Amino acid sequence: MVDVAVIGVGQTRYGMFPERTLKDLFHEAAINALNDVDKGLDPAAVEEAFIGTLSTGGAQLGNFAPLMMEAAGMVGASARHIENACASSGFAMRDAVAAIASGRARIAVAGGIEKMSDLPREKNRLWLGISGDVEWERLAGTNFAGIYAMMARRHMHEYGTKKKHITMAAVKNRNNALANPKAQFRAPLEIDRAMKTPNLASPLSFSDACGITDGASMVILCRADMAKEFTDQPVLVVGSGGASNYVAIHDRKSMTTLEGTKRAVQQAYEMAGISADDIDFAEVHDCFAIAELLAYEDLGFCKKGTAGKYIESGATARDGKRPVNNSGGLIAKGHPIGSTGTGQIYEVVNQLRGRADTAERQLKNVRYGLTQNVGGSGAAVAVHILKAAA
Amino acid sequence: MVDVAVIGVGQTRYGMFPERTLKDLFHEAAINALNDVDKGLDPAAVEEAFIGTLSTGGAQLGNFAPLMMEAAGMVGASARHIENACASSGFAMRDAVAAIASGRARIAVAGGIEKMSDLPREKNRLWLGISGDVEWERLAGTNFAGIYAMMARRHMHEYGTKKKHITMAAVKNRNNALANPKAQFRAPLEIDRAMKTPNLASPLSFSDACGITDGASMVILCRADMAKEFTDQPVLVVGSGGASNYVAIHDRKSMTTLEGTKRAVQQAYEMAGISADDIDFAEVHDCFAIAELLAYEDLGFCKKGTAGKYIESGATARDGKRPVNNSGGLIAKGHPIGSTGTGQIYEVVNQLRGRADTAERQLKNVRYGLTQNVGGSGAAVAVHILKAAA
Repeated sequence: MVDVAVIGVGQTRYGMFPERTLKDLFHEAAINALNDVDKGLDPAAVEEAFIGTLSTGGAQLGNFAPLMMEAAGMVGASARHIENACASSGFAMRDAVAAIASGRARIAVAGGIEKMSDLPREKNRLWLGISGDVEWERLAGTNFAGIYAMMARRHMHEYGTKKKHITMAAVKNRNNALANPKAQFRAPLEIDRAMKTPNLASPLSFSDACGITDGASMVILCRADMAKEFTDQPVLVVGSGGASNYVAIHDRKSMTTLEGTKRAVQQAYEMAGISADDIDFAEVHDCFAIAELLAYEDLGFCKKGTAGKYIESGATARDGKRPVNNSGGLIAKGHPIGSTGTGQIYEVVNQLRGRADTAERQLKNVRYGLTQNVGGSGAAVAVHILKAAA
Repeated sequence: MVDVAVIGVGQTRYGMFPERTLKDLFHEAAINALNDVDKGLDPAAVEEAFIGTLSTGGAQLGNFAPLMMEAAGMVGASARHIENACASSGFAMRDAVAAIASGRARIAVAGGIEKMSDLPREKNRLWLGISGDVEWERLAGTNFAGIYAMMARRHMHEYGTKKKHITMAAVKNRNNALANPKAQFRAPLEIDRAMKTPNLASPLSFSDACGITDGASMVILCRADMAKEFTDQPVLVVGSGGASNYVAIHDRKSMTTLEGTKRAVQQAYEMAGISADDIDFAEVHDCFAIAELLAYEDLGFCKKGTAGKYIESGATARDGKRPVNNSGGLIAKGHPIGSTGTGQIYEVVNQLRGRADTAERQLKNVRYGLTQNVGGSGAAVAVHILKAAA
C-alpha cells in the first residue's frame, strides 16, 4: 500500500450565501486548496476526484462531479460524486486515499459541497429526512432531531447523563467558533442561557442543534513519497476507516452506541498502529450535541457511559487535554452536509501544520488529529487519522 | 498494487417492474451474485461496497448505499453511493477495484440499481435531462436524444456516415437480445423496418434509442490471490480506466469523439499491457445507436471516421471477429441507468466463464472482454478489461 499525504486544503466560509452558485462556491474551495499547495500544483495533474454532496443543491443531479471539476478547472480527471448523507465527503476522502494507496493515481482530490440555501425550508427537511430510513422513519414522521433526542434520552436513562452535560458540548463548540473566521455562527453562549433555549425535541433544545448551511471544501492528496515536491509541510493520512449499519435506529443493537463509529475507528487505529490515547485532538460529528458525547465513547476517548463526566472535566475544551471541535464543530462552524467531511480534514490539516486561521485557536504540540464524519443517525461513518510529517 | 478478481456476478432481468421495490430488486441481484460464487461466500465478509444509482428511485436520497446493503444482507461494510449519471456503476466497479488493489479490503462489491418505473414519464425526463449541463443544455431545452442526434449529424457530415450505418447498430443489438432471457426488449427487427420507425431527433429514430428500464446488478470482487478459495473460474480485472470531460457538448473540442473514452481506454490498455487488437468482445454504451459507432472509433476498434464501414463489415456481429453488445446492449438488453455499468461486467464475466444464459449466444474462444460505460453525453467514462484466469 502506497502511503498518502495531504498537500493542500481549501474551504469557503460556512454560512448562508443564497446569491452564490454551486460552481462559484466549489471554485473558491478549489482555488483555496490549490493556493495552499506551497510550491504550486498544475490543476491538470489531478487524476482522480471524489466529490461529496447530498442534494446537489437540487440542481445538477447527474454528472455532478464532472460539473464541479469544470468549476475547479480540473477537467479530465476520473471524477465521481459520492453520496453518504452527512458523511458524503468523509467517504470521498476515504476513496481518494484508496485511489492513491492502490497506485492508480499520484494526485487525487476529495471535495464536498452543499448549498442548502437554494432549497426552501420544507425541501431541506425533505432532503435531510430522506437520509433516515424512508419507510420506517420518515414516513412515520420521525426526523433527525427526534432520533438524536431518543439517543440522548436513552443515554440519560442508562448512565445518569444530564441534559446539562449534553448542552455543555454545544456551549463549548459555539464559543470555540468565536475565534474561527470561517464559522457560520459566532455568538457567545453561556450554559445557563443555553439551557433555556426553546425545546426542539426533548431533551434537545435549539442551541443543541446545527443549522442550515452553505459551503464547500477540498483536500488535495498525493503519494507521500512525492509530497515534498509540493510542500515542506505535508500531512500524512495514517488511518482511514469506514463502516455502515442499519439505517433505522430501531434495527440496531444499541441506541447509545454508533457501531459504525466503533468499527471505523478500530480500522483507523489498526492502520495507524496507535490507540485512542495517542489522539491529541479531534473534529467529531456533532450534528446534535448528544452526538459529540456518543463520539467520545465510541472513539475510545472515555469509557462507555462516562461522556457526561468527561466533558464536565474540561478534557475536550480548547485548553483541555484533548480538544474536540476546536473549530466550532457542526453546531457552530456549520454543517453544509456534503462539505462537512472534507471541512473537518481542512481543520485538522491546518492545525497540524500550525496554520489555524487565528493564533488564539492554534493548538500547541499536536501530532495526531482525528476526524469522525457520520451519515444520518449512524448508517455510515468515516474516520480518518492524520499526522504531521516529520 | 494487489491484483483483483471477480468471483461472482448477479443481475435481475431488465424490464418494467412497477410492482417491485428497490430493496426487492437489489436483494435479487445480491442473492444472484452470492449464488454465483461457486464455493460460497459469507455476506458478512464483504468489507467495501460501492452502489451506483442516479435517481435512487426518487426515494432514499441519503444513505442510499447502507439501505441497499441491508437489502443485500451485507450490513456493516464500508458502503457508499456512487453517482455519475449513466456511468454510476462503471465508477462503482472502478472504485471497488481500487479498494482491493490498495490492500484495504479483501472482498468488495460493486452494485447498481435504477427503478425508473417508479417515476412518471416527466420525472424521468427531468432526472435524465439533469445529467446534461443544467444551465447550458437542459434549460435551453436540449435533451440527450438531441445531443446524440447532433453527434450523429456531425459524424455523417464529416465522414460520410449514413443513417443506415447508425441504425445497423440498433438492429444488431435488438436481434442479439432475442437470445438473452434477461433482456428487456426481445422483438426481432430488420433494417428496412427500423429505418421507417418514427423520428426521435433526426437522424435518430425511435429504434435507435434505449427505453425506460428497471433493474439491478452486483459484482463480487476479491484479491486475486484468494480467488480460488471461492471459485475455480475467477475472472481477472486486468484494466480499469476513468475520465471526465466538460458536461456540455459545446465546450468540447470534438462532437464526434468522446475524449473521456479515449483517455479511459488508454489507461485500461496500459494497465493490462495490451492494445485494442487484443480485445475479443465488448459491451459498449449504446444509449443511442450512434454512441456505439463512436465507441468503435474511440476504443481503437477501427480508425476515426470508419465506424460506418466497420459495422457494415459485420465485424461486431455475434459471429463477427469482435462481437459488440452481444447481450443486446443498452438499446435492447435495457438501460436501468445505475445498473448498466455492473450489468455490463455481469455479461462479460459470464461470457469469459462460458456461462452465457443460452448456448446460442455463448461466444467461443474469448480471452479479453471490455466494457465501456458513459455518463451523460460523455462527461464521465469508465472502461474495464477482464480476462479469464488461467
